[in-house]
Amino acid sequence: MTHARMSVAELETFLNREFPQAFSHGDIAIESADGRTSLLRQRYSDRMLRPGGTVSGPTLMALADFAMYVVLLSAIGPVALAVTTNLNINFLRKGQPGQDVVAVARLLKLGKRLAVGEVSLLSGTSPDPIAHVTSTYSIPMT
Amino acid sequence: MTHARMSVAELETFLNREFPQAFSHGDIAIESADGRTSLLRQRYSDRMLRPGGTVSGPTLMALADFAMYVVLLSAIGPVALAVTTNLNINFLRKGQPGQDVVAVARLLKLGKRLAVGEVSLLSGTSPDPIAHVTSTYSIPMT
Amino acid sequence: MTHARMSVAELETFLNREFPQAFSHGDIAIESADGRTSLLRQRYSDRMLRPGGTVSGPTLMALADFAMYVVLLSAIGPVALAVTTNLNINFLRKGQPGQDVVAVARLLKLGKRLAVGEVSLLSGTSPDPIAHVTSTYSIPMT
Amino acid sequence: MTHARMSVAELETFLNREFPQAFSHGDIAIESADGRTSLLRQRYSDRMLRPGGTVSGPTLMALADFAMYVVLLSAIGPVALAVTTNLNINFLRKGQPGQDVVAVARLLKLGKRLAVGEVSLLSGTSPDPIAHVTSTYSIPMT
Repeated sequence: MTHARMSVAELETFLNREFPQAFSHGDIAIESADGRTSLLRQRYSDRMLRPGGTVSGPTLMALADFAMYVVLLSAIGPVALAVTTNLNINFLRKGQPGQDVVAVARLLKLGKRLAVGEVSLLSGTSPDPIAHVTSTYSIPMT
Repeated sequence: MTHARMSVAELETFLNREFPQAFSHGDIAIESADGRTSLLRQRYSDRMLRPGGTVSGPTLMALADFAMYVVLLSAIGPVALAVTTNLNINFLRKGQPGQDVVAVARLLKLGKRLAVGEVSLLSGTSPDPIAHVTSTYSIPMT
Repeated sequence: MTHARMSVAELETFLNREFPQAFSHGDIAIESADGRTSLLRQRYSDRMLRPGGTVSGPTLMALADFAMYVVLLSAIGPVALAVTTNLNINFLRKGQPGQDVVAVARLLKLGKRLAVGEVSLLSGTSPDPIAHVTSTYSIPMT
Repeated sequence: MTHARMSVAELETFLNREFPQAFSHGDIAIESADGRTSLLRQRYSDRMLRPGGTVSGPTLMALADFAMYVVLLSAIGPVALAVTTNLNINFLRKGQPGQDVVAVARLLKLGKRLAVGEVSLLSGTSPDPIAHVTSTYSIPMT
């Protein structure tokens, strides 16, 4: 049984059309999205680092926000106007040099007006998250 | 293998001595604590409700903060002076009337100076959390 | 010019009726509320302390949440069903022993569905806040 | 009387050397920094927008984080290794098309180990913030 209203292929088509600047660099891949969780991978690039070799905060925040949007779309279908209202991030540890960043998002609540979720951000194959995010999306009334 | 530096019995003795006003009402029980996670149960009482029958925000925040302290103590041993520096809570749904509240806390990071964790707050036997917390404790230098 | 839809006297009457357990102990006073800001004072009591003499986190969270509710009511009128959806608190420093706690709340946004505000919590006459809160209320559709 | 340990010119030299990728595009200017507050301006660019014409979340988070770092440096002097541990952002309203974004940061606490501040993000000349941030920096021991 699946809860997804959009397949990964449908999500990619929608996001390429609606959010070309966020998605079409080709460095973020949607590995899965099932209406409750999503798994995204951002390919390693020097651009994601800040001095000292850690993954920059804005890179992690942007990926987490995007992973939450993907799981929300997979749950409610193509709604371009959902907007983030709150995002809270805890930075936990340095990532591994030269590794991809993986975001695992999970919906905690899907209401009519608000969706809340959490995202773990992982570096390479380590199970210890480098950052943890909770965020809220406001869903437009239809 | 266990990671706990204190058993549940040792935690209860310590908390009864150091935090009598938070702990000694007898309405909160530590069901487990293993150095990585803790599970606490607050017995239902009318005092925990606000009008409309929902569990009050301060009740949930206090229980979550306490569950984080318990998992931290179980990881590092009896340190009375650890203090919360940040707590973020998302209120997700109403609880079930007349039910206990259960807190499941998990350490996301245990550093020398800071510990970060998340807590899911559950009502009765429903798997859907009524609230979700992330918080940070500052650990005194020794 | 005032922006308030309810006077302080009207707020007190409403809150005594709707939230007797939060408000009617007589230890919290609404000093002002003008549709944009509110100022509340919680009279010192030993019950608000945790060991070490600091004001307990739940006391501060409860007062901040209440101050946000008061400024929201003063802005939109008596809406009993507004609920907190998110609260983020940073604990900054110890309070002064034996002093009242003062909450200064300010609306950052008043939308149709969501209100966001910040609250500074002060101890005695010191200008340095002991804690800082941001929170979001969800406003029911009418 | 000033509390600043570094002048704006010293801050710019330090940041150009230590954080060239964040700072040297020339689109962010430090307008002031006095050890308690900082004011930064990010010049309008199409790159900061997301579809619908709103300023993107990552742009706002990055600017707020940077403004907090600038006020912290101005308070404690050149410490390259301070790192953000927590950032909480509330998105409040759309910005004005084609306008600069201004960040006003203010330290709430400057401790030996942790600094906490808040940042208001403004669009053009409107006094109503488009987003509000609180964040914590961990300061390395010396």
